Amino acid sequence: VGRNSIGFIGLGGMGEPMAANLLSAGFALRVYNRTTAKAVPLVEQGAELAESPADACEPGGVVISMVADDRALQDVVRGPSGLVAGLGRGGLHISMSTIGVETARQLADEHARAGQHYVGAPVFGRPDAARAKQLAVCLAGPPEARQRALPILRDLGRGVWELGDEAHAANVVKLSGNFLIAAAMEAMGEAFTLAEKHGVDRAAVASLMAETLFACPVYEGYGKAIAARSHEPAGFRLDLGLKDVTLVQEAAKASLTPMPLAGLLRERLLSALAHGDCEKDWSALALGARRDAGLD
Amino acid sequence: VGRNSIGFIGLGGMGEPMAANLLSAGFALRVYNRTTAKAVPLVEQGAELAESPADACEPGGVVISMVADDRALQDVVRGPSGLVAGLGRGGLHISMSTIGVETARQLADEHARAGQHYVGAPVFGRPDAARAKQLAVCLAGPPEARQRALPILRDLGRGVWELGDEAHAANVVKLSGNFLIAAAMEAMGEAFTLAEKHGVDRAAVASLMAETLFACPVYEGYGKAIAARSHEPAGFRLDLGLKDVTLVQEAAKASLTPMPLAGLLRERLLSALAHGDCEKDWSALALGARRDAGLD
Amino acid sequence: VGRNSIGFIGLGGMGEPMAANLLSAGFALRVYNRTTAKAVPLVEQGAELAESPADACEPGGVVISMVADDRALQDVVRGPSGLVAGLGRGGLHISMSTIGVETARQLADEHARAGQHYVGAPVFGRPDAARAKQLAVCLAGPPEARQRALPILRDLGRGVWELGDEAHAANVVKLSGNFLIAAAMEAMGEAFTLAEKHGVDRAAVASLMAETLFACPVYEGYGKAIAARSHEPAGFRLDLGLKDVTLVQEAAKASLTPMPLAGLLRERLLSALAHGDCEKDWSALALGARRDAGLD
Amino acid sequence: VGRNSIGFIGLGGMGEPMAANLLSAGFALRVYNRTTAKAVPLVEQGAELAESPADACEPGGVVISMVADDRALQDVVRGPSGLVAGLGRGGLHISMSTIGVETARQLADEHARAGQHYVGAPVFGRPDAARAKQLAVCLAGPPEARQRALPILRDLGRGVWELGDEAHAANVVKLSGNFLIAAAMEAMGEAFTLAEKHGVDRAAVASLMAETLFACPVYEGYGKAIAARSHEPAGFRLDLGLKDVTLVQEAAKASLTPMPLAGLLRERLLSALAHGDCEKDWSALALGARRDAGLD
Repeated sequence: VGRNSIGFIGLGGMGEPMAANLLSAGFALRVYNRTTAKAVPLVEQGAELAESPADACEPGGVVISMVADDRALQDVVRGPSGLVAGLGRGGLHISMSTIGVETARQLADEHARAGQHYVGAPVFGRPDAARAKQLAVCLAGPPEARQRALPILRDLGRGVWELGDEAHAANVVKLSGNFLIAAAMEAMGEAFTLAEKHGVDRAAVASLMAETLFACPVYEGYGKAIAARSHEPAGFRLDLGLKDVTLVQEAAKASLTPMPLAGLLRERLLSALAHGDCEKDWSALALGARRDAGLD
Repeated sequence: VGRNSIGFIGLGGMGEPMAANLLSAGFALRVYNRTTAKAVPLVEQGAELAESPADACEPGGVVISMVADDRALQDVVRGPSGLVAGLGRGGLHISMSTIGVETARQLADEHARAGQHYVGAPVFGRPDAARAKQLAVCLAGPPEARQRALPILRDLGRGVWELGDEAHAANVVKLSGNFLIAAAMEAMGEAFTLAEKHGVDRAAVASLMAETLFACPVYEGYGKAIAARSHEPAGFRLDLGLKDVTLVQEAAKASLTPMPLAGLLRERLLSALAHGDCEKDWSALALGARRDAGLD
Repeated sequence: VGRNSIGFIGLGGMGEPMAANLLSAGFALRVYNRTTAKAVPLVEQGAELAESPADACEPGGVVISMVADDRALQDVVRGPSGLVAGLGRGGLHISMSTIGVETARQLADEHARAGQHYVGAPVFGRPDAARAKQLAVCLAGPPEARQRALPILRDLGRGVWELGDEAHAANVVKLSGNFLIAAAMEAMGEAFTLAEKHGVDRAAVASLMAETLFACPVYEGYGKAIAARSHEPAGFRLDLGLKDVTLVQEAAKASLTPMPLAGLLRERLLSALAHGDCEKDWSALALGARRDAGLD
Repeated sequence: VGRNSIGFIGLGGMGEPMAANLLSAGFALRVYNRTTAKAVPLVEQGAELAESPADACEPGGVVISMVADDRALQDVVRGPSGLVAGLGRGGLHISMSTIGVETARQLADEHARAGQHYVGAPVFGRPDAARAKQLAVCLAGPPEARQRALPILRDLGRGVWELGDEAHAANVVKLSGNFLIAAAMEAMGEAFTLAEKHGVDRAAVASLMAETLFACPVYEGYGKAIAARSHEPAGFRLDLGLKDVTLVQEAAKASLTPMPLAGLLRERLLSALAHGDCEKDWSALALGARRDAGLD
């Protein structure tokens, strides 16, 4: 194949299948992960192992990051072995982690000061969607940088939605999406509890909704789980859900946007954690409505 | 052609196309509406005009009602010219209006005491869906009564979801569905305002969501309207939305089910009415998040 | 002694000591209670027993009512043996029950149509305060009617606060007061739980607040109970608390006034009822914050 | 006169009168403020001017801090010219600022590691109360350290409430108090708007409440302001109110304590800021209920 070489930072549940897809698509990859073991399968598929984030970069090249949270990304970008140090002038950082809006803004600035480009490209989809190239990508950043990122991102998902020239806009949208999911889960938690209290089968309500008004992935999948109160194993852990809702609230505060429904979700998630549901899927937030109603 | 005669009460925006579809399907209809003018087109299509709800009934026959609210339905059922008086023993009332759970329970009792059957069969869908036989029907009531209602209901919509032996269960589910819609609208109102405050195009967010996680009618249709703040003409008036959320809250109170999100919706709808949005579509409840954020 | 004769309707926990105080103050009383037994002690103190609300009235005279709820008061006012029938032209109904705003408005109209006066005069205070003439009276209604009521009301409490010419205004204020009490209880429930979760003694926080910023009856009394989670026996039952918060919400709806905090209180009270706390004092609503926090 | 020398850090609106009171009480003071000009009046009253926080300390001595926020206090404590560096073994830091619980915990640790003592001693009261020695002091920390702090604190206020052995407990309680105040303001905002919408005078309701159930400083003072919608000049700025409610929410999150009412307050304060009320008193949060109700 012989396409360009790309750096790839972060080989966790999401990053590993994404990197593997890029390899299959013909990209040469230099991969880095904090714990090296996770890189082994990719090296066996032909990736080169980098010793630091900077080492994964080529001067003026492209590097993708997909790490756990704001702190992890800051660690990857900053310092003598970080991406800013490694990318050189004209380099491009495609930042795909779910991070806070303010962090995105700061990192974009740090790259810009080094003559580098930064685009936000967080995704919707779980590891299985990543493997199946079914991620939905939110893309924002300077136009030329987006142009450069687009062909790569198209090999990672089923579509790229462009959201303007400011990189952090992509994170606003990614967080908004997670907020919408959590809101739908709370709504179902309340509705199904109302039904249950009136002697109606929770699963029958969930089916009806998922087959009619709400025939879409979020209501289909989470609806079934919430109706059955089946929240293990976790697809997305409840404590990570709280992390994301907290990021939503920080973005809301920074922009002076009251979001009472986000506030309700926060209280539900805190209550779930207080009841020991940390390891459950974040859809377990819907148990709160049932507990409130005296059903345990 | 040549099928049984059915009574049909209530020829408003929903009832008229439903009755027309039954005529086309070969049912003989006796129709009644409080204001006779609305019955004219149906009479031209072959329906017989009844002079009262009771007059639309045949002893032991089937009558369908589709009226505006609890009060209207109680007026139709009770009294010397009401359905209980007209149906006779063994008659069946298919009650399709969006009414409260307690009202449904009472009317089922009143019919039962007269040796009659009552099923709840409220629907999801607007007048255009009614005309296109695309309604989704929630059906509940005694098994034999449901059996008798099913073939008729199948001529009115795209599917019938059965929800158990107690007629009011169908109303719980119908109200739950309207609650889920309103909750989704509030969530979008907050999410799109967050995006707007960060300089992101509301419509771009709405599209992304409607094409990915939330590719379903509620998010597609209302999402577009909420993004564009386009709430006129009303598909479903905001004051009727408050009526339905109030019915949800009454059902919640009767069953001791706390529903904080329903409470939030109530406040949003009240605030919209206080700002003069009574004639707008109920999706205008999403304007509240924007007003709160100082955008006017 | 030798003052005018007054009718007094409703000899429950509140009405009985109030009537007794009027007797002591020299008023001649004609008393009525649905169950006659409760009238016995007053008759022994010199009151005359009336056989119906109408029978307690003198044409053009004054009658006081203090009954359980809207329904009870409507029953007392309406019908052939009701107050409207008994009072005659120029009579005055001093309505002291805690009732809804709309009911007050209707009853004022009904009396007015009969050429009678109606003032709203609900009170703050429990039975012990009633006995000790320490009630605080909210008074509203037409000026001359208020003038006529004032000397009587001054014998029932420690003060009369006049709130304008429309009788229902007094009920708005009474309900607002109960709302403020419930809001303070919820606030303490959350604050004390926060303290407890951080290892701070709930009672110490309650004392500090009641000795400084909040040195007033509501925070002193309820603060101690909420800190100790001591909610029995009930001073004011939780289900009655929900009745009053519901009246607040109805007044809010009628006037298009969003009250999110009232909504929160409603959910707390419903949850308490769902957990079997119906017989407890309404301060048990504060247990909700603790349950949410996983402390049981 | 002739009492021990004390260091005093932070001479703003609160710190200056507190320091002046200590001088009057006979303490020798070494004072430090980031901008020296504010120290001049105290120097004229006999205080010695320190060049850094460390310089205000005597080895093994006592130092009081009263600064604007967490960051300012961290700057005062840490670094080569900070309190930890200056206090020496056996020194005592009496920390009186309103800061977050986690910050308090960290600073207590940092002092402990240096063989020093730290007590939390935040106060209730505004600058006028500080000047009049009417502050209420929340005190927590190791018993001997509290013993050492008590005689000094008694010269600053009208009482000291002891809250256990962990310094941060005092901050939990201080923040809880501010939360209770804000909750009371929101409750009044809703209640007075309900009254206004029914044609009842806001001020009349405020008076009644402040003279009866809520005869305490918070309802008296804020009640009058909220009734009159008089929020300037600010006694405590709205943005500082949001800072404190945010600290409450952080403490709630750290302890897994859902606080829906705190969440409501946050949204109100954000909305007020979005409407340009940043410079107003934080009681302006009560305007939100009125705006929601369409009154502007």
